[in-house]
Amino acid sequence: MTVIKQPDPITTYHQTPRTTPSRLPERATYEVDAINAVLDEALVCHVGYVADGAPAMIPTLHVRRERDLYIHGSTGARLMLAARTGPVPVCITVTLVDGLVMARSWFHHSINYRCVIIHGDATMVTDPSEKWDAMAALMEHIAPGRAEGSRDANTREFAATAILRIPLNEVSLKQRSGPPGDDEEDLDLPHWAGVIPVTTGFGPLEAACDLPLPDYLADYRRGVGR
Amino acid sequence: MTVIKQPDPITTYHQTPRTTPSRLPERATYEVDAINAVLDEALVCHVGYVADGAPAMIPTLHVRRERDLYIHGSTGARLMLAARTGPVPVCITVTLVDGLVMARSWFHHSINYRCVIIHGDATMVTDPSEKWDAMAALMEHIAPGRAEGSRDANTREFAATAILRIPLNEVSLKQRSGPPGDDEEDLDLPHWAGVIPVTTGFGPLEAACDLPLPDYLADYRRGVGR
Repeated sequence: MTVIKQPDPITTYHQTPRTTPSRLPERATYEVDAINAVLDEALVCHVGYVADGAPAMIPTLHVRRERDLYIHGSTGARLMLAARTGPVPVCITVTLVDGLVMARSWFHHSINYRCVIIHGDATMVTDPSEKWDAMAALMEHIAPGRAEGSRDANTREFAATAILRIPLNEVSLKQRSGPPGDDEEDLDLPHWAGVIPVTTGFGPLEAACDLPLPDYLADYRRGVGR
Repeated sequence: MTVIKQPDPITTYHQTPRTTPSRLPERATYEVDAINAVLDEALVCHVGYVADGAPAMIPTLHVRRERDLYIHGSTGARLMLAARTGPVPVCITVTLVDGLVMARSWFHHSINYRCVIIHGDATMVTDPSEKWDAMAALMEHIAPGRAEGSRDANTREFAATAILRIPLNEVSLKQRSGPPGDDEEDLDLPHWAGVIPVTTGFGPLEAACDLPLPDYLADYRRGVGR
């Protein structure tokens, strides 16, 4: 499917058949800022591709740079080998789980979540400068300050790392938040209802050296107010 | 690809070409107990499938029952519609992130994680008894006690829910734990190294009713010692 790339700057992605939900369309949004917030907060993504006609998937680290997503891997990994001969169609999902929605009925149990789904072609980055910048950005995605705070890649390591670029063009965010949506006639049932928030914590740090902790790693957190 | 199902009980899954890592094979295991622990702890999975020749993916709730994984969805969802005409080949990934591995070099940065990858065919469950049991098990996967602790499905809700079964047959667990694996010559570099553990927290609960909290939701947690 060919999706015409919108000229920058954009505030909203074009909706396509693939990014149109088959149900609950009110949960979908195409706003760039909301999508970027999820991509930047989540540590890892899941990359789906087709191998020998069958679905395949890997979890991996990603980073967003403007209108592109970058993922990395070993040059020997299956996906990276596939990308050596040309762009690989991928579906990338970035999911954050925010809560368990406990409804009065089985049917209305749900998850509060934010999930970005990206359709596109993953292209091997061959320009050394773009590749270097993406590798540095991946370090910054792990922890802002870490690109400068660790030894950068030598020639062997640079060659052993493959970086793929996926343009952010056909993208949607689907999300749910808030309390359970029980049916009116169930509200008086004797079943507890509510939300169990799911949170991600970091620490306590496990040092593998005697050096003092750098400032940029103190009080590590991700997401809003990071 | 046809994978011969092993007779029960088994302690280890057969290794196949698809479940053999292209790199770091020492991180892979096929032990049933270790794999079950990840499937049972993780709240959601990612389901990859092929739609019109292109990769597609959804996050969804899952539950394991013995040697089968069950996922659910609306009967109107794309994956569920596809499964109405026959089994759908899927790749299901269940990922738990345990820590950020901060190495002295960019190259050895990593994630501590546990990731189960399942290849198989997703088949629509049509037997009402099996479907009912899977729906109850999904409630129990959210919180043990919840199947009894909420109103079960009425005829309309039962009909509106689709359940797919994926036999656990071609399965692997890839995992990393422990400190960074820096190169010997980097150990004296002035860069902090260690692990930032990633933990999942639950609560504080947000009640949507005036009822007392049931015992089975007090001190909610998942995973070891749950």
